[in-house]
Amino acid sequence: MNPTTSGSIPPIATPRTIDWAGDHLVAIDQTLLPDELVLVPLRTIDEVIDALRRLVVRGAPAIGVTGGLGVALAAVIARRDGHDAAWVRAEVAKLRAARPTAVNLAWGVDRVLARLDDGLDAVVSLAVAMLDEDVATNRALAVRGAEHVRSLVPDPHRVRVLTHCNAGGLACVEWGTALGIVRALHEAGDLQEVFADETRPLLQGARLTAWELSRMGVSHRVVVDGAGATVIARGLVDVVIVGADRIAADGDVANKIGTYPLALAAARAGISFVVAAPESTLDPLTASGADIHIEARDPDEVLVWRGQRLAPPASSALNLAFDVTPADLVTALVTEARVVRLADGERLNG
Amino acid sequence: MNPTTSGSIPPIATPRTIDWAGDHLVAIDQTLLPDELVLVPLRTIDEVIDALRRLVVRGAPAIGVTGGLGVALAAVIARRDGHDAAWVRAEVAKLRAARPTAVNLAWGVDRVLARLDDGLDAVVSLAVAMLDEDVATNRALAVRGAEHVRSLVPDPHRVRVLTHCNAGGLACVEWGTALGIVRALHEAGDLQEVFADETRPLLQGARLTAWELSRMGVSHRVVVDGAGATVIARGLVDVVIVGADRIAADGDVANKIGTYPLALAAARAGISFVVAAPESTLDPLTASGADIHIEARDPDEVLVWRGQRLAPPASSALNLAFDVTPADLVTALVTEARVVRLADGERLNG
Repeated sequence: MNPTTSGSIPPIATPRTIDWAGDHLVAIDQTLLPDELVLVPLRTIDEVIDALRRLVVRGAPAIGVTGGLGVALAAVIARRDGHDAAWVRAEVAKLRAARPTAVNLAWGVDRVLARLDDGLDAVVSLAVAMLDEDVATNRALAVRGAEHVRSLVPDPHRVRVLTHCNAGGLACVEWGTALGIVRALHEAGDLQEVFADETRPLLQGARLTAWELSRMGVSHRVVVDGAGATVIARGLVDVVIVGADRIAADGDVANKIGTYPLALAAARAGISFVVAAPESTLDPLTASGADIHIEARDPDEVLVWRGQRLAPPASSALNLAFDVTPADLVTALVTEARVVRLADGERLNG
Repeated sequence: MNPTTSGSIPPIATPRTIDWAGDHLVAIDQTLLPDELVLVPLRTIDEVIDALRRLVVRGAPAIGVTGGLGVALAAVIARRDGHDAAWVRAEVAKLRAARPTAVNLAWGVDRVLARLDDGLDAVVSLAVAMLDEDVATNRALAVRGAEHVRSLVPDPHRVRVLTHCNAGGLACVEWGTALGIVRALHEAGDLQEVFADETRPLLQGARLTAWELSRMGVSHRVVVDGAGATVIARGLVDVVIVGADRIAADGDVANKIGTYPLALAAARAGISFVVAAPESTLDPLTASGADIHIEARDPDEVLVWRGQRLAPPASSALNLAFDVTPADLVTALVTEARVVRLADGERLNG
């Protein structure tokens, strides 16, 4: 126990990452963090799609809730402007395709869309309920995950964690998945230090995870993505904890590019590699990692930083946004409902 | 054979990365590439040390030659200003310690310093000879390496390479080690494409390797460091070729941070991982990778980009400049003199 860091801690993200404002969405613009905390209204489906594509809103759970809220938004607009259900379905179909890798988007959209025939109130109330549900899911996952992580490490009261990208409150409504576990360990006084991969090209680790850890008062250091494997090999961490964007039926995990080499390094070093994700990230319709569509984004995300070109004029880039970690490298998948020891041969179904 | 890319190709770096100008050194300022090609004179040992520390001059072979030229510079200054041999030795001792990981610096310094009692002409002529010797070494290494790489890949006439950091002409006097092999394959019309890791924090891949590949007319794409393992896993390359900063007696390889996870990914995918380095990078006095001193550089290299802070104000960073790849993951070490199949159990000595 570290008496200076235990006790009451403010919410990770105040206000919530994404919220419903009666007839439109409100989101933290994550492209402006850590420099500015700015809330942006999203009043049309095109604005929601743009926010998802520009990563104003990102993180699989947050994307899922945004999908549900987007259906509510389409229904509200339809009522106000006199559009029919077919118009709502067409708008929502565009939204559902805004980002291909995270399964949560389709999950959130489909779940609320199924209520469309029950009327506007039913649609909005389900979408709004998903906000609190996401927080409750994260909290349950975090408690279960913290308990499991303590069982995996040499000293359960001085846990040292490496994480990648941002699977925190900013990737959800609040609280977080991988960082939710970190937060639960920190609240219990059982966390020593977190290493955060910076996560190129968009630096979600250096910008967002470091921001959340700073607000939590967690001791942390940023490393370049290429250093994660060495942080593991040199014994500076006890466990790797990451989120997920889609988990195939065989347990293969799609997550932010740069996750897979950490799993390889953890296996070589003999430390645990833990994936933290809600059940809504499991995709039984995708057989294996090879079937997951990996989003390739604009090469300029790699080649240009804040308007300044980094590489020579004629050079191009391949900007794969996600990678796939094979199930045999995943020590444990932790959800709000269970722990599945994939590397030991446990399966998701049956 | 690709008729549009074979034939005569200009030198990678014109002028040379580092050169001797009669009574001082001249170097390409690599911090300004790819935007500007600027030559800077280095007229004092302190200026040489500063150039090494700021990575104006970097790359193990170039650092080695700079060490040798630095001894010549100290001897020239001593003659001009009336200092004695003890002064030269004191200046050179500072230079020798400027960068701890690359063994070539000490190698270059010690080699020329051994001639100090033979007089100024002997010192300068040996240091200058090291320039041409480095080019000849690189060329021999490149020919041997290209031949060996062709034997390792499925189609020796359409080789696809992943490299990390910059082991090109800019890391040497000219020509290059890992990129020397790439260049030899390209001149023979046997190269299809190169993927270049951007290599955070200082982007030697995106800035320097991409610049050299552009000048060679090699088809190439930049990827973030976290994507290298996925480029390998998805079968987009046939071989990984990297340089080295120090190779221990047991074959463990120190190279730019981010190299080790590529070796893990290559082993998992069953493709070859090739290290290209001159014999001067072998360090028989260092028993294994665990004994190699890994330089930790200024955290602001990670946290700040071109004056703009990336992470929150209270966040710190661990900036390890190199990592260690265990010998068992190195399919082949190629030097100017030999190919050593380390992963097959071949040893460096005996």
